[in-house]
Amino acid sequence: MIPKLIEIDATTGTITSAEVPRELRLVGGRALSSAVVCAEVPPTCHPLSAENVLVIAPGLLAGTALSSANRLSAGAKSPLTGGIKESNSGGVVAYKLARLGVKALKIKGKRNVDEPLLGIHITRQGTSILELDHLRSKGTYESARLLQEQFGSKAGLMLIGPAGELRLATACINITDPEGEPCRNLGRGGLGAVMGSKGIKAIIVDDRGVTVSPTPEARGVIRKFSTALKEHPVTGEKFAKYGTVMTLLNVNGLGGLPTRNFSRGSFEKAEAIGADTLHDTLESRGGMVSHGCMPGCVIRCSNKYVDQQGEPIVGSLDYETVCLLGSNIGIDNLDAVAALNRLCNDIGIDTMETGAALGVLAEAGVWDFGDADRARSLIDEIGAGAPLGRLIASGCVACGRAYGVERIPAVKDQGMAAYDPRAIKGMGLTYALSPMGADHTAGNAIVLSVDHLDPNAQLGPVRDLHLKTAVLDSLGLCLFTGRVSLDQTELVEEICSALLGWKVGFADLLKLAQGWLLQEREFNRQAGFTAAQDRLPPFMYAEKLAPNDSVFDVPEGHLGEFYSF
Amino acid sequence: MIPKLIEIDATTGTITSAEVPRELRLVGGRALSSAVVCAEVPPTCHPLSAENVLVIAPGLLAGTALSSANRLSAGAKSPLTGGIKESNSGGVVAYKLARLGVKALKIKGKRNVDEPLLGIHITRQGTSILELDHLRSKGTYESARLLQEQFGSKAGLMLIGPAGELRLATACINITDPEGEPCRNLGRGGLGAVMGSKGIKAIIVDDRGVTVSPTPEARGVIRKFSTALKEHPVTGEKFAKYGTVMTLLNVNGLGGLPTRNFSRGSFEKAEAIGADTLHDTLESRGGMVSHGCMPGCVIRCSNKYVDQQGEPIVGSLDYETVCLLGSNIGIDNLDAVAALNRLCNDIGIDTMETGAALGVLAEAGVWDFGDADRARSLIDEIGAGAPLGRLIASGCVACGRAYGVERIPAVKDQGMAAYDPRAIKGMGLTYALSPMGADHTAGNAIVLSVDHLDPNAQLGPVRDLHLKTAVLDSLGLCLFTGRVSLDQTELVEEICSALLGWKVGFADLLKLAQGWLLQEREFNRQAGFTAAQDRLPPFMYAEKLAPNDSVFDVPEGHLGEFYSF
Repeated sequence: MIPKLIEIDATTGTITSAEVPRELRLVGGRALSSAVVCAEVPPTCHPLSAENVLVIAPGLLAGTALSSANRLSAGAKSPLTGGIKESNSGGVVAYKLARLGVKALKIKGKRNVDEPLLGIHITRQGTSILELDHLRSKGTYESARLLQEQFGSKAGLMLIGPAGELRLATACINITDPEGEPCRNLGRGGLGAVMGSKGIKAIIVDDRGVTVSPTPEARGVIRKFSTALKEHPVTGEKFAKYGTVMTLLNVNGLGGLPTRNFSRGSFEKAEAIGADTLHDTLESRGGMVSHGCMPGCVIRCSNKYVDQQGEPIVGSLDYETVCLLGSNIGIDNLDAVAALNRLCNDIGIDTMETGAALGVLAEAGVWDFGDADRARSLIDEIGAGAPLGRLIASGCVACGRAYGVERIPAVKDQGMAAYDPRAIKGMGLTYALSPMGADHTAGNAIVLSVDHLDPNAQLGPVRDLHLKTAVLDSLGLCLFTGRVSLDQTELVEEICSALLGWKVGFADLLKLAQGWLLQEREFNRQAGFTAAQDRLPPFMYAEKLAPNDSVFDVPEGHLGEFYSF
Repeated sequence: MIPKLIEIDATTGTITSAEVPRELRLVGGRALSSAVVCAEVPPTCHPLSAENVLVIAPGLLAGTALSSANRLSAGAKSPLTGGIKESNSGGVVAYKLARLGVKALKIKGKRNVDEPLLGIHITRQGTSILELDHLRSKGTYESARLLQEQFGSKAGLMLIGPAGELRLATACINITDPEGEPCRNLGRGGLGAVMGSKGIKAIIVDDRGVTVSPTPEARGVIRKFSTALKEHPVTGEKFAKYGTVMTLLNVNGLGGLPTRNFSRGSFEKAEAIGADTLHDTLESRGGMVSHGCMPGCVIRCSNKYVDQQGEPIVGSLDYETVCLLGSNIGIDNLDAVAALNRLCNDIGIDTMETGAALGVLAEAGVWDFGDADRARSLIDEIGAGAPLGRLIASGCVACGRAYGVERIPAVKDQGMAAYDPRAIKGMGLTYALSPMGADHTAGNAIVLSVDHLDPNAQLGPVRDLHLKTAVLDSLGLCLFTGRVSLDQTELVEEICSALLGWKVGFADLLKLAQGWLLQEREFNRQAGFTAAQDRLPPFMYAEKLAPNDSVFDVPEGHLGEFYSF
């Protein structure tokens, strides 16, 4: 089966399907979404205009039974940062799209707010557009349920909530997990608003009837990779037991846990939202301690959080959310965080940016840190399209401007992830220099074996990590495979050979990644970004972070030479 | 008297007075404020941080009896654009500061929101800091009244309203006119927020006891300039009869009058808010048809608008406000515009950006174009610090983001002035290329004798005009003298010689102006601006403007070579 590029023009409702050009056959995920954005989106266009293109691209290895290899990339010009964006998620959609031979979806054009909402239905028979206006203003949970009733519970869904319909700059795109819960997110950078601007409420991907038979060689390497993941203490055990929250007490111990709008690096109630608490709570209540967000994943880092009666609240409760909607806003219990997480998912808004925005607003005195009921009502205002909700959903920088706050933890208008870069200094390089703004995923420096407080120890390892991450994001491999895939790179080479017929060395992949990053950076340059935007906010250079009393002091020269490959 | 630079550190409350260094003796107004900002403000600092410096500099000729020569410049890094800002106003303060020998005030440091508000009192005896916390949250009208009770009705005032105290990004600084009304504004770019961040509610300038005797030569040239202004039909008569609103029907006729969020270039009710209506209303009600905003001005373009009972509403009702709070938001009567203008003045917020923001919000469906009562209540929300008010006061770009609007008439995050650049194409060059964002004052191309629709006719004349304008802004000469001062440049040379002892040719002044503009531009470059920000919003290149059905099509190359002096 020769894979297809499906192009949808939302303005006209036309669908075009074309064979993938030869030069893109071995490009997938982030490399592909960014290539399309760079080739087709005018860098200075309005992100909600017809010119922007929402690109949805499964990783290169998606559609196979390889563990942890079904990540989905979405790309566009970001309504939040104004630069290029790739957002990355698990869930079932990449797997199904790839099995249907869909290399990428490109959605162009735009729809007016008052036109009926549409859906895109992709099956073995082809792609069609249908009206979904009955889902208008509905949350993602109810929308998913109704879509599953209509299209079958096996259909994979990408959908937006009210936030995306309202075209809010931090709206996300939700992806269903194997249980059909719309809880995996293309979270950052407002891609839900781009989908909303094109009038698309949902994409339904139904791969029934497709059979793919792996070769014996493929079966062998799939088994080998699973075994390697299972044998590693972290990917084989710790992730499954503690999930991503396992990092919380570690980061807290390093003094880098964002607390009360990044005013401290440790939270006095960290234990209460830490991994042991999460694990024990899940176990005692009968939640799912361990769960795979993607078909075939053996790491199984996700979970299904339940309330005291064992009723589902949200799956999965993950580290970034537990910090940004927890310690960063002074909330010290997981039930409260889970409720906020569920609410954000339902509205279709990025939990991380919401936490960053609420942190800034608490500092401004709009509400009190720790008041979970008030946090909930503030997030409700997003879904209602109320002015304060819209401001929150415009991101922490907009909140800071509206309330005259100076301590705004953001780069390129995007709120930072759950690591304060004054204590985890490599993360500062990632936030500052990634074309994506203050994402952690572009180079999650917390995994590096370096002294995180040493300003001189970061440049080389973090730069390496950016390249390696870009490789994983393009292959569709989950970053959490890194402890195996980045340690035993010959395994990645075997995988490419057996599953893709691609004889490529890992060093060659890294070389390709240099080009991908530089192409993203060139988009940003044309959009108007310079070195001035490749820096942390001024307060992080001056305001000491307790308990280390550290500032961000990675030498300016290190930032300057980051992209000198 | 050797002029002084007075530096105030708001953090510590210290006041330092120093002689003006020799190289700054012949630098004033915009050239001086920008020189200080470029020298002392880190381009990437947070605009509300201690590092930002609010510079207040009378024009070089201020303090004399020369007509129309007492303009005041204020400069800082703008909270709205993130770039350098010079804002320029009439009123009495420049005159009084100059007579007191104050070449410039530099205000550094910052105060927390909960610290008492301060005032700066400048008299012949010296400069002191005093507490003004009893004025907290008070509008500028009541504040001015109370300050005049305390310090005498002759004191000149610069003050902020609630918007500045709230550090809102479009807060202005109000200046009193000769009658003591706080209605002259350093309007654009949020300098009121910078003043607010330094905890300064008001600056009281009392020049009693100062006598300055002009030389016979000076007297001669002052007379000569007045005569020349009086003899010109525009500066001698039209401005006094119709005020700045005289331009409205002209711009409407050219199809460039921003109407309903820049969706049309002509307003069907333009007559109702035009110059004849204004003039007749003022005359029949007993308002002041003509009034000088600065001591000694013979042009007298301003007015005092009154209600049907003859009670004062606002002085002065001017073109930019009548358009942006009139046609741009669908309001077709001057009483309503005047009430909104008064309200904005009282809150201390830029009327122009407020009009641009309300236009975007009407397009988003938040309110209906033309509903003056609702417009009023929306502006009230600014003063109250309510979320929607804060969003409005964050500017039209923030409103567009929060409501997912694509048609946002702004450059560098600042709303456009009252000329649609698709019909007045030279103004497009000004908006795009001025370091100040979409101000008209940097090069008010409407005065040029060119075909405003011809994309190829603009580059040379507009570039010239930017330089000439920078000269006037630095001398402190009102732009409205241009029909005389820029036509009879030898008069300017005579003035410099007689009043400043400065033998300078006008061509030399233009040469200096090149340096001033390039220095401002360099600040922006270091703050992260590139050519991508030196462009109009995308919709203006694509969406045809009725009635001319024109787009902005000045060749890209013309924008690129604008600064090739």
